[in-house]
This record gives sequence, structure tokens and C-alpha cells, in this order.
Amino acid sequence: MELLTTNNVWMMICTALVFFMHLGFAFLEIGLTRQKNTINILFKNIFIITVGLLLYCLVGFNLMYPGEFNGFLGFAGFGLDAPLTAEGALDLAYNEGYTYWTDFLFQGMFAATAATIVSGAVAERMKIGPFMVFTILYVGLIYPIAGSWKWGGGFLDSLETPFYDFAGSTLVHSVGGWAAVVAVCLLGSRIGKFKDGKLQAIPGHNIPLATAGVLILWLGWFGFNGGSVLSADPSLTSLTLVTTCLAAAAGGVVAALTSTVLHKNLDLTMFLNGILGGLVGITAGADQMSPTDAVIIGAVAGAIIVFAVSLIDKLKLDDPVGAIAVHLVCGIWGTLAVGIFGNLASGAQFVSQLIGVASYAAICIVSSFIIIFIMKKTVGIRVSEKEELEGLDAHEHGMDAYPDFRLNEH
Amino acid sequence: MELLTTNNVWMMICTALVFFMHLGFAFLEIGLTRQKNTINILFKNIFIITVGLLLYCLVGFNLMYPGEFNGFLGFAGFGLDAPLTAEGALDLAYNEGYTYWTDFLFQGMFAATAATIVSGAVAERMKIGPFMVFTILYVGLIYPIAGSWKWGGGFLDSLETPFYDFAGSTLVHSVGGWAAVVAVCLLGSRIGKFKDGKLQAIPGHNIPLATAGVLILWLGWFGFNGGSVLSADPSLTSLTLVTTCLAAAAGGVVAALTSTVLHKNLDLTMFLNGILGGLVGITAGADQMSPTDAVIIGAVAGAIIVFAVSLIDKLKLDDPVGAIAVHLVCGIWGTLAVGIFGNLASGAQFVSQLIGVASYAAICIVSSFIIIFIMKKTVGIRVSEKEELEGLDAHEHGMDAYPDFRLNEH
Amino acid sequence: MELLTTNNVWMMICTALVFFMHLGFAFLEIGLTRQKNTINILFKNIFIITVGLLLYCLVGFNLMYPGEFNGFLGFAGFGLDAPLTAEGALDLAYNEGYTYWTDFLFQGMFAATAATIVSGAVAERMKIGPFMVFTILYVGLIYPIAGSWKWGGGFLDSLETPFYDFAGSTLVHSVGGWAAVVAVCLLGSRIGKFKDGKLQAIPGHNIPLATAGVLILWLGWFGFNGGSVLSADPSLTSLTLVTTCLAAAAGGVVAALTSTVLHKNLDLTMFLNGILGGLVGITAGADQMSPTDAVIIGAVAGAIIVFAVSLIDKLKLDDPVGAIAVHLVCGIWGTLAVGIFGNLASGAQFVSQLIGVASYAAICIVSSFIIIFIMKKTVGIRVSEKEELEGLDAHEHGMDAYPDFRLNEH
Repeated sequence: MELLTTNNVWMMICTALVFFMHLGFAFLEIGLTRQKNTINILFKNIFIITVGLLLYCLVGFNLMYPGEFNGFLGFAGFGLDAPLTAEGALDLAYNEGYTYWTDFLFQGMFAATAATIVSGAVAERMKIGPFMVFTILYVGLIYPIAGSWKWGGGFLDSLETPFYDFAGSTLVHSVGGWAAVVAVCLLGSRIGKFKDGKLQAIPGHNIPLATAGVLILWLGWFGFNGGSVLSADPSLTSLTLVTTCLAAAAGGVVAALTSTVLHKNLDLTMFLNGILGGLVGITAGADQMSPTDAVIIGAVAGAIIVFAVSLIDKLKLDDPVGAIAVHLVCGIWGTLAVGIFGNLASGAQFVSQLIGVASYAAICIVSSFIIIFIMKKTVGIRVSEKEELEGLDAHEHGMDAYPDFRLNEH
Repeated sequence: MELLTTNNVWMMICTALVFFMHLGFAFLEIGLTRQKNTINILFKNIFIITVGLLLYCLVGFNLMYPGEFNGFLGFAGFGLDAPLTAEGALDLAYNEGYTYWTDFLFQGMFAATAATIVSGAVAERMKIGPFMVFTILYVGLIYPIAGSWKWGGGFLDSLETPFYDFAGSTLVHSVGGWAAVVAVCLLGSRIGKFKDGKLQAIPGHNIPLATAGVLILWLGWFGFNGGSVLSADPSLTSLTLVTTCLAAAAGGVVAALTSTVLHKNLDLTMFLNGILGGLVGITAGADQMSPTDAVIIGAVAGAIIVFAVSLIDKLKLDDPVGAIAVHLVCGIWGTLAVGIFGNLASGAQFVSQLIGVASYAAICIVSSFIIIFIMKKTVGIRVSEKEELEGLDAHEHGMDAYPDFRLNEH
Repeated sequence: MELLTTNNVWMMICTALVFFMHLGFAFLEIGLTRQKNTINILFKNIFIITVGLLLYCLVGFNLMYPGEFNGFLGFAGFGLDAPLTAEGALDLAYNEGYTYWTDFLFQGMFAATAATIVSGAVAERMKIGPFMVFTILYVGLIYPIAGSWKWGGGFLDSLETPFYDFAGSTLVHSVGGWAAVVAVCLLGSRIGKFKDGKLQAIPGHNIPLATAGVLILWLGWFGFNGGSVLSADPSLTSLTLVTTCLAAAAGGVVAALTSTVLHKNLDLTMFLNGILGGLVGITAGADQMSPTDAVIIGAVAGAIIVFAVSLIDKLKLDDPVGAIAVHLVCGIWGTLAVGIFGNLASGAQFVSQLIGVASYAAICIVSSFIIIFIMKKTVGIRVSEKEELEGLDAHEHGMDAYPDFRLNEH
């Protein structure tokens, strides 16, 4: 009882920290885009967290953790169904690490993250209606079904050498990242991003908030990874926080260094994305790595970020906040790294990690393509040129983010 | 000892989260008003939290928890008086959920909230001196005396069916809300708000900070409601967090939907106020509701917000941040909902809830009217027209919030 | 085991809160300076936290806690070396309050703070390269060596009446503060700060973020002081939070009052710095004071701030954010106050406190002078006049913090 209480306290705190990541995402996304689309981005982020939580209550939790199932798709019914004792009290035998309620809420806070990642990639040009429909389907159905394959005890958890994804480099970050790629391809780049085939930088309008966003996300990752221990086990939770923070630091430093060597400037945005890359990278194996492993994984993620951003630009994919490089590319890296470094490293594990990555690629690419393509061909997914130029805030919301400030047009 | 330590850890964290709500309130209030009054609002908020805490130490704690008393007014003496063991150490037998120090600090963080609510309603036109006097009297005396009626074991706690207010829909939010109504009535509306009897929108100057404010407040509510369990009891704390978050989500979604149907725009401000309405609404019974109850209570609060804002506008009450709709109207709704939904629902409970609402209406309206009316008739409570037009920052503080930015005059 | 788990949970949360202080410092520093140097300041702060953590892992932790050593300088070797049981698991007998990993991470979060304090004092005119070199040497070597003198069990911990510094009024804040004085002296004041010998105010460009910074720092101090108990002991942790918050409140109120009496304005910046002064002041003895002691220590710190800021101006030391007054002057005050108030008050203690203050003054002044003076005479430490006038963001980083906003030149 004492231990359950302590475990549950830790898990509730981690839940709060993961919730707070939504402010981090919102700050990062508005900070790295133009002021004329700020309201739109904030609206999307508030929509995601509120609707995401309600959907996870309605169907998501029971799709993701269906109990005994075929390993691909199961559903334990609508709504929440707390286990009770004979006397009608909440059955605390549910789990040694948390109560049923804590379990639901912690997992629910994760669920909305996938859509948030997509939000950043499609910023400044996607219609809000179709984005809301996408969010409902992707957060409500695809994320939990895909999640059941591993965390729900599905087929990826039943491989001879089970696929391993501690806190979601693949299950959360790549799931968002794959949909981001699909959405960006179907949506096209922002007007002016590639002028006569040449890349034009579109600077973010509020770098202090973007920086705050990254620090808030790092803070949130204490809960994201720390809570994924699913108890307050002193060894595992504290090791996880150490590997998480070291990977973040190494990712940031290496990304900044690489960028400085290549581009001769001290690029704050790259520093920030390097931190996020390190965090995403360590997430799949944060409980299985030594500090040295963590530094290496983070450092590699930091270098990857710089090259991935360049590559994505060369492919003429317009990702305003670098979501694909951070969440997809570093998510894949982190997932594979579990087969290379740390306690689980082995050839068999590496193969299982590849199978996991491929499985999630398949479901995410296919499902997000179907959802977004149908909307593109019917209602349309992109705002008009006029709306894009004048900003989504004025057209979709009739509001300005900063009405007292004089602004530049661009 | 182990359990006390765990309980106390949870309560200290909740205390920190409630403290952090003051940043949420500050961001929300400056975000929804004009830049020319930003310093003034920040000054008020910093004043409230610092002076509020000192006053709660000096008199508030012992007014609110006087021990045995007549049920209406008691006072256990000035300052803090920690219970000691025979050896002079802190007596840990004080409570199973927390130490004496934690008890004081957690309750102290609540105390300042009432004045913060008023601050939002009177923003942009009230003189700072009278506001400070009001804060001292209202936070230092009225809030704890009113609080003693229920949480201190007073007459509302001794009704045959005791009045129930888990975390303060009435004791905190309505206490602030009633004073907000009185202050707004005595103060009048801002210049330009009602032009020739027609409502003119005065847009807030920094919507990203307003949005951040709401997310910080939501985070803080993990501690506000979660800590009101007064221990780390796994069932109750985790249920409380679930009901709190679901009500917030439902409130936001329903407010946004209602507003979109009525006004044909995707109104971010209404979405945000809907979340706050849901949070205030669930607060009175967060530990007594099922998830379904919580969604309903939050959803109704969300709808109420939209209509209450309209009604308050029609009554020509100028409440720049929507404090009355959020904290008073949803506070009353949440209090009454305890008699309708959840474990305590009954006719008798509903009557007790009505008695509670009426009692707090009485003490708050009368006391805030006396305080503010006397100041209005003596020193005056409203800044000069010139000062209001040019902004309180320049006149009361001799400072600008954003001196490097070019600003619009209005 | 139950108790260790609870203690460790508390320490991990405190670690997260201390980490979050870096956002507080960043917001405070950019808020109180001009927009043209915002990117530079954010870059420095991100550099400090990432590089600081990596250095603390590489050498700092083992310099600061070398085990048995001569009391002045010891080194337990590079990298981390977790104690293991015979079975290869983490040895939980390491400490009753936390695991080895938690110990490292909590202390690592402290380490970067010293450089952050200097960052504020040298803002808007120091070259980024030399600042990075200074950070590496000061955070990587000087801070942990100096720290070993007391917290590592060195000579100041072995005095007949041991020097006492609970959470770092001297070991953290003064260590940063002394280097800030040296750096400011060697660097000179910003262009335009002292025109014809007369002080010119250079207003900060974003007061909402500066205010948020102070509230985030206050929140972080729950962990900074609360975690310095090094366990979740209910009496000590909760007393510490009470003294911390009361000192903060008293510091703010007295600074605001003093400033209002002297300068006839309601100065928000002074209010904010008063809070920080109160926090720094209580830090040395937060676990040894009664609430009344805490209010007095905070109040004196608040008054000190106002006079110290004036004095520093008169000495023509240009400290853009008031770091010297807050961290050095109040750090000294707080350290000496341990000999005057609370459980340890005695003449002998006061002498030991003086010895401690003098020892840290010596190592910090000498080492920071050597580091910065060498750089001044070789590579130079100050940006060109053109760069300073046009802003460090454009020249060092090629980026604007707010590209969508129209800005004033100054």
C-alpha cells in the first residue's frame, strides 16, 4: 500500500508533466512560424489536447489495451470501466505501479502527441476543418490501434525477440512523423518557400517562445520517459532521467557544433532541434542505456538532425518546424539504437527493431494517406492563396494574436 | 511514517502547482487586455501572491482554521504556531496527510486566488492603491473567515446534510467572482467598451500568453484539486485528476462548438474560457464524480460560459477577461452539480448546496461592497480618463512593458 | 525500500524543478535587456545547461564529491561510476535519500546555475566565444572544486564550527556573483549606460517574460531548497518550503516598499528583484529558520537589493539584470544570517560564515579574473562598437528574435 501510493504519486506527477508538454509544443510551433498564423496554431493545439483526451476516454484506451486479443486489433468497449472490489471500491490490485485512473490519464496524455507533431509540419497552410477531422481519426483510432501492437501486448510484443520501444520513439514520435511526411507531400510547400526552386528561409516570429517550448518539452520528458517505467522504481526511474538529460544535452551540443562547422553561424534553432532530436532518440531505450550510451545516441541524433533538415529541404518538403527530422528520423534512429547499444543490443534485437519500424511505417503511411487523400479530393485540405498570404488567423478565426503591435507584412 | 512521507510529498508538489497558477492567472489577464496596462496587471499579481502569503501567515490561517469555534468567526491567534513533540520536534501526529507546515503553505497558496479573480475583472481602469487595500482586506480577512464556515468546520459543515465543496468552486472561485461583480458594478466599464450602448470588442494584446496562461492553470489544477484530497490516497487522487481533466476538455470543446454554431467563428478565447469553466465547475465535486459525470458537468459549464459571457455583456458589465462567467457562474453551477450528480446527489444535498451558495453570496457581496464603496466615496477607485486612455503603466508605474516594439494606439 | 522510493521521487521532482529554473533565468535575462540581443542570450543559456550537464558528468561530479581528499582539491576520476551490488544491480545502499543517478542529476542541475548568473551581468556586450570558454572552465572546474570545500566534505566542512550553506547562498549564488563582478569590471559598461558620467536607464524589452522568469525561478526554488534536504523528510522539507516562500514574499514586498518610498514609483522590476533577493537570502539557512526568521531575512534582503542596485550604479558597474545585487550581495547576507538567526546562531558560527564567504571570494575572484583577463588580453572579450549598437543577434547569430514585429532602434 505504501509502495503503491508512492508509485502512483510518481505516475501522477509524470502525467502532469506530459500534459505540460502540450504548452511546449504550442510554443515551439508558434515560435517557429509567422505571427499571422498564431491563433490557428494555438487553436489546433488546444483542440488536440481536449478532443484527444475525450476520444481516448471514449475509445482509445480500450483500443490500445484491449486485454486478450488477436495481436492486431482488439477493442474492450466504449468508455472507461474501472475494476472494483467486492465492496465497490477501486480495486488497487490492478497494478503495483498505479491505479486504473492513473493508467488511463497517463496514456491519454501521450495519445494527443502524435497529432501535435503533424500540426507543426502542416502549419501555415492546412485548412483547420480537415486538420480537425484528421486529428479525430488519427488520435482516436490509428494511434491506439498501432499502440496495441506493442504496448497492448500485440504481435510486436510477441516476436521471439520482442520489439522494444520503452517510451515511444516509434509508437509516439514516428507515428506522428510518418503522418507528417504524408501530409506535407499531399499539401505542398508554403507559398514562397521554394522560389524558382531555391530555398527561402521563412523565419519564425517569436524565438523566445520557441526556446521556452523546447525547455518545457525537456521538462515534460522527465515525465514522458520517467513515467514510462510505470512505477517509481528508484533505479530505473533515476537512470532514465539521467540518460534522458544526457542525450538531450549531447544532441543539442552536437547539432550546434555540426551546424557551426557547416554553416559558420551559431544557429539557435539547430541547437534547439538537436536537443529535441536527442530526446526523441533516447526515448526508445532510455531505461536500457548507460550514461555513455545515452551521450552517443544523443550525439548521433544531433548530427542526424542537421543533415536530415538539409535533406528534407532538398527533397522540397516544407516542414516549418522541423518535425520530420526530429520526430521521424530521430525516432527511427532511437528505435534502431536499442539493437546496437545498451542491455538489449544484439543482432536479433536489431532485426526486431527493424520489423517494428517497418510495421509502424506501413500502418501510419497507409492510414494517414487514405485519410488526407480523401479529404484532398473532396473538401480540399489547403487554404486559398489569399488566405495563406493574409494569414489563417484573420480568415479562419477572425482574430489577431498581437493586435497592439505593429507588424511587418510577409 | 512511510505513508506520511509519501502523502506529504504529494501535498508539497500540489502546493507548488497551485503556486504556479499565479503565473497562469497573470498570463491570462495580460494576454486578454491591452499592452498599455500590462505592467499594472503584473504588479497587481505579484502583489497578490506576496502580500497574500504574508497575510495568510499573519492572520489568515488562524482565521480559517480556528479549531473549536462558534461556526461563524473564530481566531486562533497571530502568526504560525507549529505543534511540537515533548522533545521539541515537529509533531508528525498533526495529520496523516501532511505536516503543519505543508498544511499552512498549501492553504496559503489558495488564499491569494480570490483576489486574482477580481484583478482580472477590474483590469485597465481601477486605481492600484485601492486595489491593494481591497486585496489586503479581502485576502487577509474575508476569504479566511468565509472559508472557516466550511473548511474550518463552521456552520456550513455542521448542517444536517453538510454543504460540500471539495476544492473550492464556491469557497475560492465564487468568493472571487462575487467580489468581481460588485467591483465591476461600482467601477463602471472601460472607456469605449459600450459606445452609444453598443458593445465594442477590445481585443487582448497577447493571445499566446493568454493560451499559455490557461494551460498553466490547467496544470495547476492537478494540484488544486489533486491536493484537496489532503493525502496521496491512490484511488481518490487519481480519480480526481481524471474528472478534472475530462471536465476541462469537455468544457473547452462544448464552449468552442456552441460559439461556432452561434457566431460562425472558431473562437480561441471561448475555447480557453470553456476549459476554465469546466475546471471551475468540476472543482466542487471532483472526488465524488464518475468520468461520465465529469464530462457532463464540464460540458454544461462550457455551454454556460458562452451564454454567460453574452448575458454579462447585455447587462453592460465590463469584465475584460470573463472572470465573472468563469469563476462565479461556473462556480455556482459546479457547487449545485454536487447535489445532482455523483455520490452525494440528493434533494437534501441540493438544498445544502443552495444554502452554501447563498451564504457565500451574502458575505462576499456585502463585504466587498462595503470595502469598495467606501473607497469609491473617499479616495476614488477609478483612474482619470487621461490615465485610462494613455494606459496605467505610464501613469502608475512609469514603465513600458515592451519598449523595443512599435505599438498601435488604442 | 518504501522510504527510499519516496525520498527518491521527491529528489527527482526537485531535480526537474531546478532544471526548469533555466527557463526562469533565460526569461528574466532577455526580459530585462534589449530585443536586439535576445537570440544571443537564449543561445548562452541553452549552451550553459547542455554543456554544463555534460561537463558535470565528465569531471564535475567527481571533483565536487571526490570522497576522501585533502579538503582543497580531489578528483575521483572521469565519468560516472555507479556503485553496483554483487549481482550487478544499482546498489541502493548508496544513500537513504536517493540513488546514485539521482544524486548526480540533482547536483548537475545546480552546476550550470553559476554561469547563468554571470551571463546576465555581461549581457549585451560580451563576445559569445569567450563567454563559452569561461562557462566551460567555470562550470566544469571552478564551481565543483569550490563546492567540494563544503558539500564535498572539504576544509570548510571540517572547521571546528563547520561553515553552513544549506542550499547554496554562497556555493552557488555568490560563486556566480563574484565572477559577475570581475567580468563586469573587466568588460566595462554598455555604450550609453553612463552618458557624461550620468546613469541612463536602458529598459528591458519584455517585462511579461521577465515576470514569468521570476515566478518560474520561485517555483524552481521549491526544488532548489526543498531538494537540498537530500531526502523527503516531512518536517524538514515542508519547513524549508515555508521559509523559502515567506522570505521570497517578504523580500519582494520590502523591496517594492523601499523603492516606492525612495523613488515614488511602483517599480515592478524592484519588486521582482526583491523576491529573488529574498530567495537567495534564505537559501543558506532555509532548513534552520523559523517562519519569523525567514520573514526577517527576506525583508532585509529586499531592502538590501534597493540600496545595492543604487550602489552598483554609483560604482559605475553596469549589471543589466541586477545579478550582482541579487546573487552576490544577498548571497553574502544570507550566508551571514545563518550566524545571526535560527538554530545555528552563535558567534562562532558567524565567524565560520565569514571564513566561508572570504574563502569563496578568494577562489572565485582569482580564478575568474585569470580566465577573463587572459582572454581580454588575447582574443578580446568585448564585441565591436558596431556590433554592440546593431545587436549581437545579427552579428553573432544572423537571426532576429522577432522578425514579424516592427521595432524601435536604440
